[in-house]
Amino acid sequence: MTESDSKSATVKARVPRGLADRGPVEIAATNRVMVAIRETYELYGFEAVETPFIEYTEALGKFLPDLDRPNEGVFSFQDDDDQWLSLRYDLTAPLARYVAEHFDQLPKPYRSYRAGFVFRNEKPGPGRFRQFMQFDADTVGSASVTADAEICMMAADTLEKLGIRRGDYVIKVNNRKVLDGVLEAAGLEGEGRGAQKLIVLRAIDKLDRLGPNGVRLLLGAGRKDESGDFTKGADLASSAIDRILDFTAARIATNAGTLAKLRKTVGESARGLEGVAELEAMAELFEAAGYGDRIVIDPAVVRGLEYYTGPVYEAELTFEVKDEHGRPVRFGSVGGGGRYDGLVARFRGEPVPATGFSIGVSRLLAALAAIKSPIVTSEATRGPVVVLVLDKDQAARYQGFVTKLRAAGIRSELYLGSSGMNAQLKYADRRRSICAVIQGSNEREKGEVTIRDLVLGAELAASTKDRADYLELRQKAQFAVVEDRLVEAVQEVLARHG
Amino acid sequence: MTESDSKSATVKARVPRGLADRGPVEIAATNRVMVAIRETYELYGFEAVETPFIEYTEALGKFLPDLDRPNEGVFSFQDDDDQWLSLRYDLTAPLARYVAEHFDQLPKPYRSYRAGFVFRNEKPGPGRFRQFMQFDADTVGSASVTADAEICMMAADTLEKLGIRRGDYVIKVNNRKVLDGVLEAAGLEGEGRGAQKLIVLRAIDKLDRLGPNGVRLLLGAGRKDESGDFTKGADLASSAIDRILDFTAARIATNAGTLAKLRKTVGESARGLEGVAELEAMAELFEAAGYGDRIVIDPAVVRGLEYYTGPVYEAELTFEVKDEHGRPVRFGSVGGGGRYDGLVARFRGEPVPATGFSIGVSRLLAALAAIKSPIVTSEATRGPVVVLVLDKDQAARYQGFVTKLRAAGIRSELYLGSSGMNAQLKYADRRRSICAVIQGSNEREKGEVTIRDLVLGAELAASTKDRADYLELRQKAQFAVVEDRLVEAVQEVLARHG
Repeated sequence: MTESDSKSATVKARVPRGLADRGPVEIAATNRVMVAIRETYELYGFEAVETPFIEYTEALGKFLPDLDRPNEGVFSFQDDDDQWLSLRYDLTAPLARYVAEHFDQLPKPYRSYRAGFVFRNEKPGPGRFRQFMQFDADTVGSASVTADAEICMMAADTLEKLGIRRGDYVIKVNNRKVLDGVLEAAGLEGEGRGAQKLIVLRAIDKLDRLGPNGVRLLLGAGRKDESGDFTKGADLASSAIDRILDFTAARIATNAGTLAKLRKTVGESARGLEGVAELEAMAELFEAAGYGDRIVIDPAVVRGLEYYTGPVYEAELTFEVKDEHGRPVRFGSVGGGGRYDGLVARFRGEPVPATGFSIGVSRLLAALAAIKSPIVTSEATRGPVVVLVLDKDQAARYQGFVTKLRAAGIRSELYLGSSGMNAQLKYADRRRSICAVIQGSNEREKGEVTIRDLVLGAELAASTKDRADYLELRQKAQFAVVEDRLVEAVQEVLARHG
Repeated sequence: MTESDSKSATVKARVPRGLADRGPVEIAATNRVMVAIRETYELYGFEAVETPFIEYTEALGKFLPDLDRPNEGVFSFQDDDDQWLSLRYDLTAPLARYVAEHFDQLPKPYRSYRAGFVFRNEKPGPGRFRQFMQFDADTVGSASVTADAEICMMAADTLEKLGIRRGDYVIKVNNRKVLDGVLEAAGLEGEGRGAQKLIVLRAIDKLDRLGPNGVRLLLGAGRKDESGDFTKGADLASSAIDRILDFTAARIATNAGTLAKLRKTVGESARGLEGVAELEAMAELFEAAGYGDRIVIDPAVVRGLEYYTGPVYEAELTFEVKDEHGRPVRFGSVGGGGRYDGLVARFRGEPVPATGFSIGVSRLLAALAAIKSPIVTSEATRGPVVVLVLDKDQAARYQGFVTKLRAAGIRSELYLGSSGMNAQLKYADRRRSICAVIQGSNEREKGEVTIRDLVLGAELAASTKDRADYLELRQKAQFAVVEDRLVEAVQEVLARHG
C-alpha cells in the first residue's frame, strides 16, 4: 500500500446489500447438494455446459423476471468498446444464446445441465438476494411433451435423492395453452393484449401468497398491500375474473378429474384444447412410470415469466416447519420451469422447441436444513492437527513434524501466530482440532513429542477426580512418544474419535 | 415471447469478446483439478470461505492489476441506490474485506482458501480472458515468514498432486524488502517515489518476456514495442539501472550462494538486510522440510502488484512443449503471490499481516493438457443408453424402459426428437452411447426388446465378412431378450466395454 493510503481514513468493511459471504459448513453442504443434483441429471442423460457470467445485454432480451420494464432488474455496464454487457439474471437466456451460436455442432435433442450464480439488481429483502445459485436442466430440440414429462420426473427424483421424502413434496404441472384458452373463452385474447396478459400471469402467480381474494383484486382494479403500496390490476370484467379463478381452482384429487374439469373450462378454444391434450399425454406418462402420486395437474401454477409457451411446472415442498416464533411455515416452491419454444428463435429466426427446469439452490438448502437432511446437517468437519510452536528458533524442527504428518495424509498445520502455549491450545480448540503436538525444550532433549488429545482433554476438564477411570483418562488425554513414533501416535488419537 | 419480438429482426448469437463457453470435457477436467488443489490445501489446514462476485467499488481500492489508473480494468456499475459496485478482479481484495468485517469471529492466524471466477475489463487477446478462474490460499494474522514458506511448499505439493513431476516446475521466491533495499542503495527511495517504483516493479516483472535489454529500456527512457506503441520508462540513471539489473540477475545455483550475493547488493540498507534475513529463514525451512531443490531464491521475481510488502513467490513450469508451428514454448508462471500486510489495514486502520497465493486455473489447465496429465486428458465419458422411440403411441412403454434402467443406476434416456430409426441411432453414436434399446411392433408382440451394442456395431461395420469371428461378433452386436431381462442385458453390454 502506498503511504497516502495508510494516512487516509479507513474504508468501512461491509459486504454489499443483498449479497452474502459463505463459510466452510455452508460451502460443504452446497457442494454435497450440487453433487446429488448433478448425479441425478446425469442419470437422465443430461451433460454439463457452462456459459460466462456476462452476456451482451441485447442477447438477454427483454424477458426479465418479475419486472415490466426492459433492462430493469439487471446489472449492466459498458466495456472498453462501449458495448453494453449485463450480468446474467438466469441460466435460460444464456443457454438460448449458446444453443443458437453452436446449433449445428450440438446433438439434437440437446440435453444439458448447468449450475451457477445469477444476479438481480433489485431491492434486497429477507431471503431475497442479489446473487443466488440456480441449477438448471434443459432439453432443446424436442417438441414432444415427453421431454417436459421427463424433466418433471427428474425433478421428483432429484428431491428424493436430496433426502426429501415422498409425500413431503409435489411437482405441479399446468399448461400455458390451457390458460390461453381460458382467456380466449373470457374474450381476452388477441393483438395488443400482451401487457394485460402479463399482469394476469403475475397475479395468478401470487395465488399462494395472496389467496383468491388478493388475486381477484389484482385481476380487477388493483390492490393495496399492507405497506400502503398500490399495484395496478388487469382491469378485467368480473365475469372474466370469475372464469379465471374457477380455472385456477380446478385441481381435484385425481389428475383424471382435474383434466375433465379443464376440458370443460376451455370451451371451444382450439388452443385450450391442445393444452388439455398435452396435459393428458403427460399425465399418462406419469402414471405409466409410477409418478402419478407425486406429479399432479394443478391449474393454479402459471409461473410469472412471459416466455413460456406450453407446459409449466413447479417443485413444491409441502411439509411445514416452525419459524423462530413457533409459527408453522411452508417452504413452497424450490424450483420450476416450462416450455419456451420462442427463446432460441430470437437468434435463429425459426422456432426451436425447448423446455427446462431451474432449482433455486439457496432456497433448497434452507429447506434441507429445516428438515435436518443429513446432506446438509452433517457435523462441521474436525480441524487439522495443530503443531505448537514453543521455541521460535526451532521453526524448522516443528515444520518437520507437520511435513511428516502431511506426508502420511494427515491434515495438519504449524501454529503461525505469536502467542504462548495456552493461546495456541485455545486456537486448536477453536479449529475443532482432535489433537495437538507439543515439544518444549525438555521433550526435545529427550527426543520426544507430547501428543495432546483435545477431545479427551475437554472431557477430562468437565469431569471430576472421583471418576473411576480418571487416571486412565488423564493418561490417554496427554502422553509422550519418541519423535519417530509421531505419525503413529497421532493416527491412534485420530482413530479414537472416528 | 411477444408477437413484436418474433416479427423483429433476429439478434446475433455471440458470446461477448474475451469470454468463453465451456463444454462437458473441459468442465470435468476443471472439476478434477479443483478437487486436487482443494485436497492439498485442506491437508495444510486451510478451510473454505467464499465472498460474493460483487463488492462496493471503494472496498476493492486502487490496487488494480497491471494498470496505473484507479478503477480502470474493472467492471463497475451502480445499483438501485446509486452506490458503485464492481465485479471482483481478484480474490485477495474481497478476502481483505471479509477478514476486516469478521475479524473478531475468526481464528487467528486464519488460514483459508477460495476458488472462483474474477473479471477484468481489459482488451482481450489470445489466452487473455475477461473472466477467468483463480484458486487462492491465504494466511491472515501471522507476521512470521514461516507462513510464507508454508504456502510456497504447499504450492509445490499442489503441482505434484496435479501430475507435474519434480524438475518440471520451480517455486521462485524473492522479497520486496530486498528490492526496496536495492532501490534505496541506488538513491531511489522516499516520499513521492511511489509511481516511479511501480514502473520499476512492472518493468522487472517483464524480464521473462523482454529479457534484460528490454527491461533496461523500460527502466530508462522507455521502450517502443513491435507494434510501434511506446511505453514510458522509469527514467532512472544508468548506474541505478545497472544496480537493479545486477540484482535481478543475482540468482546462482544454490540458495546459499544467491543469498550471499544479495547481502552484498543491498549494502547498508536496513530494510534490504531485513529482507535478506527473511529469505535466509525461509531457505532454512525449505531445506529442513526437503524442498530445497524445488523452491529457489530468485531476485528476478518481483510480481507486478503494488500491494506486496515482503516475500513474493511464483510457481513456474519449466518444461517446454511445442506450439502448433513446432516451436518450443514454455508455460511459465501458473500462480504467484506474496505478503500484503497493508491490505486489511485499509479497513481496520491497523496493520494486519497476511500472505497468500493464487493459482491461475485456466492457465494451469492448458499446461496440464500440454503434458497430457491424466487429470485432464481422461477420455470423454461415454454417453447414456438411448432407448429408441419407433412407435409414437408407445411413449409410455418406452418411458417405462428408461425408468427401469435408471432405477438400476444406469444413465439412460428416451430419444425425444421426431426422426426415424437411422437418425436415432446416429444420435446415439453422437452421444457416444455404448448401447441402444430398440422395440418395434414385431418385438413388442413377442414381448421382447433388441439390444444394440454400438461399440461392437462400429467394429463390425469396419470389418469384413472374412473375419473368423464375424458371425459371433454380429450376434453379440445386436440381440433380442425378453422385456424382463432388459436391465440385465444392458448391464452385460456395458460391462463388455468397461
